[in-house]
Amino acid sequence: MQSQFYTLTDYPKGLPNRTLFKLETQPLPDLAEGEVRIRNRWLSVDPYMRGRMSGIRTYVDPFELGKPMEGGAIGEIIETNDSSLKVGDKVSHMGGWRDIAQLPAQGVTPLPDIDVPEQAYLGVLGMPGMTAWTGLNLIAECKPSDNVLVSAASGAVGSLAVQLAKAKGCHVVGIAGAAHKLAWLESLGVEPVSYRDRTAQELSDAIKLASPNGIDVYYENVGGTCLEAALSQLNEGARIAVCGMIDSYNAKEPAPGPSNLSQLVVRKAKMQGFIVADHWSSYPYFLNEVAPQVAEGKLVYKETVKEGLENTPDAFLSLFDGGNTGKMLVKL
Amino acid sequence: MQSQFYTLTDYPKGLPNRTLFKLETQPLPDLAEGEVRIRNRWLSVDPYMRGRMSGIRTYVDPFELGKPMEGGAIGEIIETNDSSLKVGDKVSHMGGWRDIAQLPAQGVTPLPDIDVPEQAYLGVLGMPGMTAWTGLNLIAECKPSDNVLVSAASGAVGSLAVQLAKAKGCHVVGIAGAAHKLAWLESLGVEPVSYRDRTAQELSDAIKLASPNGIDVYYENVGGTCLEAALSQLNEGARIAVCGMIDSYNAKEPAPGPSNLSQLVVRKAKMQGFIVADHWSSYPYFLNEVAPQVAEGKLVYKETVKEGLENTPDAFLSLFDGGNTGKMLVKL
Repeated sequence: MQSQFYTLTDYPKGLPNRTLFKLETQPLPDLAEGEVRIRNRWLSVDPYMRGRMSGIRTYVDPFELGKPMEGGAIGEIIETNDSSLKVGDKVSHMGGWRDIAQLPAQGVTPLPDIDVPEQAYLGVLGMPGMTAWTGLNLIAECKPSDNVLVSAASGAVGSLAVQLAKAKGCHVVGIAGAAHKLAWLESLGVEPVSYRDRTAQELSDAIKLASPNGIDVYYENVGGTCLEAALSQLNEGARIAVCGMIDSYNAKEPAPGPSNLSQLVVRKAKMQGFIVADHWSSYPYFLNEVAPQVAEGKLVYKETVKEGLENTPDAFLSLFDGGNTGKMLVKL
Repeated sequence: MQSQFYTLTDYPKGLPNRTLFKLETQPLPDLAEGEVRIRNRWLSVDPYMRGRMSGIRTYVDPFELGKPMEGGAIGEIIETNDSSLKVGDKVSHMGGWRDIAQLPAQGVTPLPDIDVPEQAYLGVLGMPGMTAWTGLNLIAECKPSDNVLVSAASGAVGSLAVQLAKAKGCHVVGIAGAAHKLAWLESLGVEPVSYRDRTAQELSDAIKLASPNGIDVYYENVGGTCLEAALSQLNEGARIAVCGMIDSYNAKEPAPGPSNLSQLVVRKAKMQGFIVADHWSSYPYFLNEVAPQVAEGKLVYKETVKEGLENTPDAFLSLFDGGNTGKMLVKL
């Protein structure tokens, strides 16, 4: 059996180019003891993958040039050499960016028996959802009385962070760009604020209008102007959960940071970066709290779906120009 | 009886000018019930006072133009209308920037009965010492195995932070400028690193040489290049205690922040601002731990002393051009 997969041909500087991604085909070796073969149905593309294209080890190893790329995926077992998984089982795993994955069974997780679409385990009930929940609860220690600000608020992580904060009873402000994203946020009961064509000072003023009592929790996905604007509106004892800084991921030259970091002292604020993988032991708590809300339709989530393995690079690249509302997925 | 005191004539932009400080004389009113009169012997000048000259409320009210300025001071009771304090008592209080202070007794603290020079309560056993101890222990949660970096390491706070960290058994690197400061740090068993004429990248390389196993705790007094250099050397789970950012206190225009803040995510690091006043309930624990070390001469502290009330503004201003080693004091 053949597997089609993407490899990276070089480590890009700045915004990756479509030509860096090469679709290759290879016959799969015979199934070894303990391995399974999976037909992928959904692939995940996520901003953090840009970090694996730098050639430098950060919190995860870089993609190896010329080797199959990896990423979250949902598929169905089509062949098995492990007693824990049988043909037909639906599973999540990290053998994405390809059509057929062959992996040791221990790296493969059967989907829980909850009445949600299977691709939800790549989004609202998967890594992005767990990331939103972890940042809000475990890092920012969000309480019902908090005023919460979320950047990239209509993205896969941000759109869940705003809803989880709303469900707690917080006053929530969401930063986004496009009009339809702002309208969607408003429909969720979130105060929408546009970053478009605004300086940090102007964005800060807009945040103040949307949250006159200041900001207690800032869920940070962007960096740059958003961070500078947020720092100026912090309340005493504010907590900033730094999930990512997509603004800088494709920067060719280091861009200067916010000029007002001393607000951390003035407001006695905490700013903490985190990686969701470190908190995976809490996944059952997350699932227990959030899965019923998803099954009952109380937690709204959007997906932007591209069809076909050949569109995986484009799906990934469009993450950096605002091309997605909610989770970006590739359907095979 | 007359009191000589300083007032501020304007809120400065950038580096304050000597002419902003006006020495005035006024007769003191009769002593009210519960008040005491104090002859000051030592005045404290501290970088945080610059924040009170901005006209903006931060964590402490701004100085009022034309009113007596305030600050830490040590003096002796010369007249009392309160049963808790008697003439001759040595006290610490906030009625500095003047020769004779008249205050409610409740704002006046008798010096503890420990065999140290009285001005130690403005430095090593006062606010700067408590600030060093709080940042290191309560904010950065410093452990004996940590690699510790301190900026402004020869200053009033930094020089205590490095020694408290050394006493724990940490590997300690201190950033300073002048050669005699670096030499003093070295004599304390601290790895000295100069920031002079170095870019952030060069300073980062120098820190790496001085601490090949990275940085677990960064005690931040400076900001700017020091912060950018430190961020590049953080270990996973590093903690940054932000005590101050003296680099920006006199900036006329906002200066850009570090370009590598996303290291907080990559290294899962925490950066937290704090104000020592919030932690004053821990002062007895601090005194209990640190005072014996000072009395026994195990904790070395330096003072830079200017003589005479008329030199108080110059003493304050020299804080911003590296004019002090250790605590800057004015002796009356």
